[in-house]
Amino acid sequence: MKKRYMLTVAYDGTAYRGFQAQNGCPTIEGELNRCLSQLLDEEIKVIGASRTDTGVHALCNVAVFDADTAIPAPKLAYALNQKLPEDIRIRASREVPADFHPRRCNARKTYEYRITRGAFPVPTKRLYSCFTYHVLNIAAMEEAAAFLVGEHDFKSFCAAASGAESTVRTVYSVNVTEQEEDVVIRVCGSGFLYNMVRIIAGTLMEVGQGKRQPESIRETLQARDRKAAGPTAPACGLMLVDYVFLWKTPLRP
Amino acid sequence: MKKRYMLTVAYDGTAYRGFQAQNGCPTIEGELNRCLSQLLDEEIKVIGASRTDTGVHALCNVAVFDADTAIPAPKLAYALNQKLPEDIRIRASREVPADFHPRRCNARKTYEYRITRGAFPVPTKRLYSCFTYHVLNIAAMEEAAAFLVGEHDFKSFCAAASGAESTVRTVYSVNVTEQEEDVVIRVCGSGFLYNMVRIIAGTLMEVGQGKRQPESIRETLQARDRKAAGPTAPACGLMLVDYVFLWKTPLRP
Repeated sequence: MKKRYMLTVAYDGTAYRGFQAQNGCPTIEGELNRCLSQLLDEEIKVIGASRTDTGVHALCNVAVFDADTAIPAPKLAYALNQKLPEDIRIRASREVPADFHPRRCNARKTYEYRITRGAFPVPTKRLYSCFTYHVLNIAAMEEAAAFLVGEHDFKSFCAAASGAESTVRTVYSVNVTEQEEDVVIRVCGSGFLYNMVRIIAGTLMEVGQGKRQPESIRETLQARDRKAAGPTAPACGLMLVDYVFLWKTPLRP
Repeated sequence: MKKRYMLTVAYDGTAYRGFQAQNGCPTIEGELNRCLSQLLDEEIKVIGASRTDTGVHALCNVAVFDADTAIPAPKLAYALNQKLPEDIRIRASREVPADFHPRRCNARKTYEYRITRGAFPVPTKRLYSCFTYHVLNIAAMEEAAAFLVGEHDFKSFCAAASGAESTVRTVYSVNVTEQEEDVVIRVCGSGFLYNMVRIIAGTLMEVGQGKRQPESIRETLQARDRKAAGPTAPACGLMLVDYVFLWKTPLRP
């Protein structure tokens, strides 16, 4: 009998065209489907939680799939890691209820956007951080970040091409911290629009450079217009770092 | 008239067969020679300070070369970065005395060896850190590290194939610190034998796992035999992080 399994997946997104399967392109979902199908000797198609973009990284994305296997659920992670390329690693595997769908379940997702400051880029950080020559005013970025917390219409922070029905989302927290030469923007929310965290990062970087005032974020939100926000920061600086399902709350319809 | 220039070079060693030029293989020295020759329109051959191994990284290796150019010395860094691949970056360029040779000058070099602990490897760290499933006793590693400080014959910590005339070196400090899930071994010395820092890291990891006692390092040094020390830790965990020339001290003969 088929059971539903959940995988916690970490990956280096550098070599992939994002999470979602696309014909002829290397994707995280494509690699998971290929290796699971090989391991379990049946055609497996995973359902991903966050469909991260080309070049975006993850410490803990989530994928579920149905399969009929004698391998105990916690052992699937080890067996699958034998087959996956080394830039994708399963950190945990467990059985979940048959009706569990990772995109129809309330969740708390946390992304980190990393910026490295300096006179010259650091080669060993280039794939995992956005480099800037600019001095950034951290206090101003923190002040601006506070305007984003809460339930807002984030239409200004959503890529124009997105087909999202509603652009209202709840952001629980936005923290800006310094870690030596790096600045890390940590955004926690119930869900994010297409490119939302990268546009938040690009806008906060402009605040840090003094191109925008912290309190201007209020008007940026009110504008409901992508052109009111800053640029989309590069994908490489973004990492999905935490994903918590709120199991006890009712699933969305 | 030709002048001598010094470059401070940072690189991600992942894609290179080490620093030293080799026919037909991508190397850091090869890239520097190619891009400098192109930029200055004459054949340039750099002299490197530390000839790091395949897969080893650097924040500040040093290379010198002679050239006849109108480009002001500090601008060479910017001009060269336009031509170099993005995994190599010149952080500074300056003029030095014509008789300055980076390998015939007293210097203080600092390497960091990074280890990431956990149940599963972290894909975004795999190229810059050595992964271990083992729990490491940091206090024991620190205690062992103290035996390495000072002037010693490091023959036990030198790759057997090395042709070094003398295996006596001075280590100024060895520090073991925890940085979240990472353990960083920072070794500072006047110079290092072939694979010396990686063998120190491999040996200290065995101490951390309880396979060796901290005080056994004294006998390991006395043995003057590569087999007495632990394994050579993987190249990816190693980074040259600091390089200071002791200009005021006399050059070695």
